Amino acid sequence: MSTPTYSVLGTRPIRHDGADKVTGRAIYGADVHLTGMLHGAVLRSPHAHARILRIDTVKAAALPGVKAVITAADFPQGPDRIVDLGEGDTPLSYIRGNVLAIGKVLYRGHAVAAVAATNAHIAEQAAGLIQVEYEVLPCVLTAPDAMREDAPILHEDLETTELGKKSGKVSNVAVHFRHVLGNSEEAFAQADVVVERTFDTATVHQGYIEPHNATALWNEDGRIHVWCSTQGSFVVRDVTACILDVPVQRVRVTPTEIGGGFGGKIPVYIEPVAAMLSKKTGRPVKVLMSRREVFEGTGPTPGSHMTVKMGVDKTGRMIAAQASLAYEAGAYPGAMVGPGGMCVFASYNIANVTIDGYDVVVNKPSTAAYRAPGATNAAFATETVVDEIAEKLGMDPMELRLMNAAKEGTRRADGPKYRRICCVEVIEAMKNHPHYSAPLEGPNRGRGVAVGFWFNAALPSSCTISVNADGSVNLVEGSTDIGGTRTSIAMQAAEVLGIAVERVNPTVVDTDSVGFTGVTGGSRTTFATGYAAYEAAQDVVRQMKERVAKIWEVEASAVNFEKGAFSAGEKSMTFAELSEKLGSTGGPVVGRGAVNPRSAGGSFSGAIADVEVDPETGRVSVLRFTSIQDAGKAIHPSYVEGQMQGGSAQGIGWALNEEYYMSPDGGMMNSSLLDYRMPTALDLPMIDTCIVEVANPNHPFGVRGVGEANIVPPPAALANAIYRAAGVRMNRLPMKPSAIMEAIWAKGN
Amino acid sequence: MSTPTYSVLGTRPIRHDGADKVTGRAIYGADVHLTGMLHGAVLRSPHAHARILRIDTVKAAALPGVKAVITAADFPQGPDRIVDLGEGDTPLSYIRGNVLAIGKVLYRGHAVAAVAATNAHIAEQAAGLIQVEYEVLPCVLTAPDAMREDAPILHEDLETTELGKKSGKVSNVAVHFRHVLGNSEEAFAQADVVVERTFDTATVHQGYIEPHNATALWNEDGRIHVWCSTQGSFVVRDVTACILDVPVQRVRVTPTEIGGGFGGKIPVYIEPVAAMLSKKTGRPVKVLMSRREVFEGTGPTPGSHMTVKMGVDKTGRMIAAQASLAYEAGAYPGAMVGPGGMCVFASYNIANVTIDGYDVVVNKPSTAAYRAPGATNAAFATETVVDEIAEKLGMDPMELRLMNAAKEGTRRADGPKYRRICCVEVIEAMKNHPHYSAPLEGPNRGRGVAVGFWFNAALPSSCTISVNADGSVNLVEGSTDIGGTRTSIAMQAAEVLGIAVERVNPTVVDTDSVGFTGVTGGSRTTFATGYAAYEAAQDVVRQMKERVAKIWEVEASAVNFEKGAFSAGEKSMTFAELSEKLGSTGGPVVGRGAVNPRSAGGSFSGAIADVEVDPETGRVSVLRFTSIQDAGKAIHPSYVEGQMQGGSAQGIGWALNEEYYMSPDGGMMNSSLLDYRMPTALDLPMIDTCIVEVANPNHPFGVRGVGEANIVPPPAALANAIYRAAGVRMNRLPMKPSAIMEAIWAKGN
Repeated sequence: MSTPTYSVLGTRPIRHDGADKVTGRAIYGADVHLTGMLHGAVLRSPHAHARILRIDTVKAAALPGVKAVITAADFPQGPDRIVDLGEGDTPLSYIRGNVLAIGKVLYRGHAVAAVAATNAHIAEQAAGLIQVEYEVLPCVLTAPDAMREDAPILHEDLETTELGKKSGKVSNVAVHFRHVLGNSEEAFAQADVVVERTFDTATVHQGYIEPHNATALWNEDGRIHVWCSTQGSFVVRDVTACILDVPVQRVRVTPTEIGGGFGGKIPVYIEPVAAMLSKKTGRPVKVLMSRREVFEGTGPTPGSHMTVKMGVDKTGRMIAAQASLAYEAGAYPGAMVGPGGMCVFASYNIANVTIDGYDVVVNKPSTAAYRAPGATNAAFATETVVDEIAEKLGMDPMELRLMNAAKEGTRRADGPKYRRICCVEVIEAMKNHPHYSAPLEGPNRGRGVAVGFWFNAALPSSCTISVNADGSVNLVEGSTDIGGTRTSIAMQAAEVLGIAVERVNPTVVDTDSVGFTGVTGGSRTTFATGYAAYEAAQDVVRQMKERVAKIWEVEASAVNFEKGAFSAGEKSMTFAELSEKLGSTGGPVVGRGAVNPRSAGGSFSGAIADVEVDPETGRVSVLRFTSIQDAGKAIHPSYVEGQMQGGSAQGIGWALNEEYYMSPDGGMMNSSLLDYRMPTALDLPMIDTCIVEVANPNHPFGVRGVGEANIVPPPAALANAIYRAAGVRMNRLPMKPSAIMEAIWAKGN
Repeated sequence: MSTPTYSVLGTRPIRHDGADKVTGRAIYGADVHLTGMLHGAVLRSPHAHARILRIDTVKAAALPGVKAVITAADFPQGPDRIVDLGEGDTPLSYIRGNVLAIGKVLYRGHAVAAVAATNAHIAEQAAGLIQVEYEVLPCVLTAPDAMREDAPILHEDLETTELGKKSGKVSNVAVHFRHVLGNSEEAFAQADVVVERTFDTATVHQGYIEPHNATALWNEDGRIHVWCSTQGSFVVRDVTACILDVPVQRVRVTPTEIGGGFGGKIPVYIEPVAAMLSKKTGRPVKVLMSRREVFEGTGPTPGSHMTVKMGVDKTGRMIAAQASLAYEAGAYPGAMVGPGGMCVFASYNIANVTIDGYDVVVNKPSTAAYRAPGATNAAFATETVVDEIAEKLGMDPMELRLMNAAKEGTRRADGPKYRRICCVEVIEAMKNHPHYSAPLEGPNRGRGVAVGFWFNAALPSSCTISVNADGSVNLVEGSTDIGGTRTSIAMQAAEVLGIAVERVNPTVVDTDSVGFTGVTGGSRTTFATGYAAYEAAQDVVRQMKERVAKIWEVEASAVNFEKGAFSAGEKSMTFAELSEKLGSTGGPVVGRGAVNPRSAGGSFSGAIADVEVDPETGRVSVLRFTSIQDAGKAIHPSYVEGQMQGGSAQGIGWALNEEYYMSPDGGMMNSSLLDYRMPTALDLPMIDTCIVEVANPNHPFGVRGVGEANIVPPPAALANAIYRAAGVRMNRLPMKPSAIMEAIWAKGN
């Protein structure tokens, strides 16, 4: 297939919101200020697991300046039902219960009540005056503990869904699913080399810089306006409407700028609380979380307990694989083990596979998506097992991966058969990368590699484009711009229209002002909203051709459009020239695009990591790191590279240092950014990037989402590097100094 | 033609913005507040006509808290050119010069310089410290004075355009045009009754409650964001871009709510000033006008000097008419005499007509549109002449009008031949109205009638509609909502979609977020933006039919849609039912509509007025007043009635009391709402309304704009009533007590 040539795609223009961001003009959620606004505070549970016996709000309500105190009892109490608000079917009661605890608190930090007052200090003081009588219950903090027969039960009505059926058994296991391909038991019997290992990973947080925020006005006409930093304004709209039991029409969400999300700003926490406080007070109410509230009250990614077993023949061909994945859901049944099961062996073509997944509730905050949620845990297991197999076979680990790489037509155990994918190309790019063959000298140093997959999400997106008389266009979109998507979406419109991207004004508008648009998540924004912008631009071109046809008195079908110019026979007119004439040829031209792509097309990613392990302290220094990823088509290569670097940095943090450090009674002991150790610029080398481009057949420009797959391989690549540097195979995240020292000591024994 | 039956049109729902307006939540321009915002003040000329010799800003700039001082010299000085910014061709220099005076000041109140400071008080103080050296010139304040050979000349380069050609002669007459139909001179010779009278009307102001305001941010990336209360956000965008010499793409205008406009909030005054102050300071700047600045610095409607001559045969058939209309343009050539010439005889079918129009500059503020601009002046003349003719013939004045009423096919002297119009129906409705035949007893009382015409504007409008899963829709529009147009536009979308209007969320968005949309003016918004909403809704229906077809596996062409339900054969599905299924049938549905109707279809209006004239004081009390108007189709009858009542009230104020009371040196002596006497609720009776509906062939629902024609007949109707009450024919507006006493005394002599 010949590669199309583009004018705009593949260039690196300055982002449209750049000036606002660097000069401090950009309005984030915390910057929202409305006349007469009150400030809210949330009272959170000090216990990881307790029954709420009584809540006494009298003292709090009596504090001067306090305008309202609410608990779960103030919310509509309609019957439970299953709702799908963009993240799969969920009982409404779970969503409600996580917003304000009903009957029980299930984790330390669980919201119990909220206050609105004339300022934030009074609100906080008043929250402290709310008296809650608890019956403290034993807590359970990890999946293996929670799966024991004698474990304390979080939800007395949670019946395990066992292989798709209600089991009748109440337990902390919400779901046990199994994917089967071929017969792995029989195949293992044929294998020449089998490696089976068990892994644990700690709970980690997305760690966005900006805490959650929400400002809400419950207007006199019953309409509710919410301003917040969210990854999905329509999700906030729909969830808020659901919890408040009003039609979605009555909720309008204005997404402000957002200081990071990584999946963690998809769930709704304080928006309905702010709205209810506004209803009670008749005034707008703003609620801001502290960092501690973010750690203790919002969704981290699951800790996990996994066993992976893989078998190869003597040539290295993978013939059997099994995985057992038990993921913490947090306080409410989650969805993260599902993608774990989809991704655990996704990079390989294996005929016989069995995957068991367990979604296990524990007394920690309800988990949320975090960049390729579930996949990083699973790849840590698979890719270290693959590394060990290569070692046992005496094969180059890249060769082993290449030999078994998934390709077009490969079927995954969870069902889908791949269309055109890029696993082979990514592995080849890794193999051919100078980093892979560069000498690595010095003691205690090692190089590790790993690959990873993320399937990416599609979901609906909408755009409109209107043409200005000066030949520029205004692009309206509903996707929160986290990583430069105003520009990457605008570039796709510009490419279609044959104009410079600087001639496109992209605006992210509220939910009343654009068609439905799913979350900025699942690496879908440049893909799906870009697709909508493409369609809107095509709609503009169609209409402009009709105008040209009118002016030249020819058939619209006789008008060509290429590189920003309309032509028919000898006649030619640029987009800008025609734009001036719209008023006199029928009026403004507005194009619309709304898409719901069936499939997103996944992305594969690889990591090459060089480390040095200090044998005295166990400290791991990352000497060099290269991220390789398929972008399908890199619309704005700088932003693709930025995603790869960001995902790698987060993967490194997850691998080496980050964890919820829990006390036995379920308290997070390190809920500050001083104590929760994310990597800083000083901890990391410059992260090198290598973009692979294998066009995605599901997108007109071949785009694949690139936001997530890059976080998947780093922990495994680092574990493999640590093995080569220090001789120890790590099977637990984080691979912090103490863990490495313990492994070294254990090996020594 | 059978009358269509509608579900939504013709009902009277609560307006969507009602709660915000009555609770004070609605954000008007003065409510805009940005972080770090500065406050601007404008220094205005104390002279009606003077040369600016020197401007010294040193003292002002040195005042602590002052951040910038600007004059016209700070603006781009590119060559003059003709621009059309929605109100016809105008030299850019006039627009520039009116924003900040260049070389000369042409009226008292003309803006000369501006200041930005940390608060409004410092800004005002600093403006007072700007030292301007003037050479005061003689001024000229009325059209007849300005047309004299020896009159002071305002623009030394203003060559009179005489009957379409540059005359080579510099004068205060910008344009003299003539419309000719048949041969009026010859026809007058055949007439049995001829009446010729000369009239003068004073300068009056639109009198909106909210003063002008503008807040601007010239961003670091060169984009300029303006927030203001305007009738046309796109006009503000385009004019501001023009004055600042930047592409329109770089200007974004957010229209806030507006506290009245009536045509006077179409021109741009302080927006470019705020923008330039922002550029100089790097901070957002807000400029607010005081009431005095509104009176002295913004566009009133022209005072005029008119002669009208009409001739009829003995049966009452009008056979000849002549008019000479000299309208004040204010400081810069205006456009108001043009519509005066279009409307002066527009109600009648007269074969021989000559109309001369003179656009005359005078040392008063540059005139702006005011509700049917130019037509009220002209109708005052025509309709009192018609009344006098009826008296001379001994005919009922309604019968005389009915006999001569314009109808489909009637050609106006200015060119157009009417399509289906409603003059006959309006006159019949007046004749048949109980008011017309009600007894009017008591001394010094009289009843007068008059009719009037306004042609209405079309101009482009754009809308988009997106469908929510709950079967509601979001409607995005660019039209400032002055008189309830959110609702009247939403109703048209609701009618097409077969849903309740409460299921439509209309939002007025900024210029970046919707296609080009002309001003809310010319009675065009319900007509043209409603038309765009109709088209957007049709686009939604088309797409939804395709979805239904997909679900039912039939051809889209086989799917019917009526009254909110899709059907094919036995199958049926409501709009709401289908809305739930959009996600699973291809994604969101977004419809777009963009129109530029060729012709708006005019509206005729009539007034019946009963007055009592106090023979001791000349005070006129309006005892009863009925406004009759054709709405084509009254979308929301309450708002149509509101327009009729508002236009009537303004017409009554114009007729009886309002005027710019000028000192000989050109100072307005009554520039406050205490001294500029607008009617209050206590001055007026309840104004009765009667809506006539003659469908407009230019609109899918037959809508005619109703915002303006209603102001046209009141002054003439009152003059005719005063004649019957006091025996004096008034030929001068306002017909204030002193003027009436003088007329009574003159008659007595």
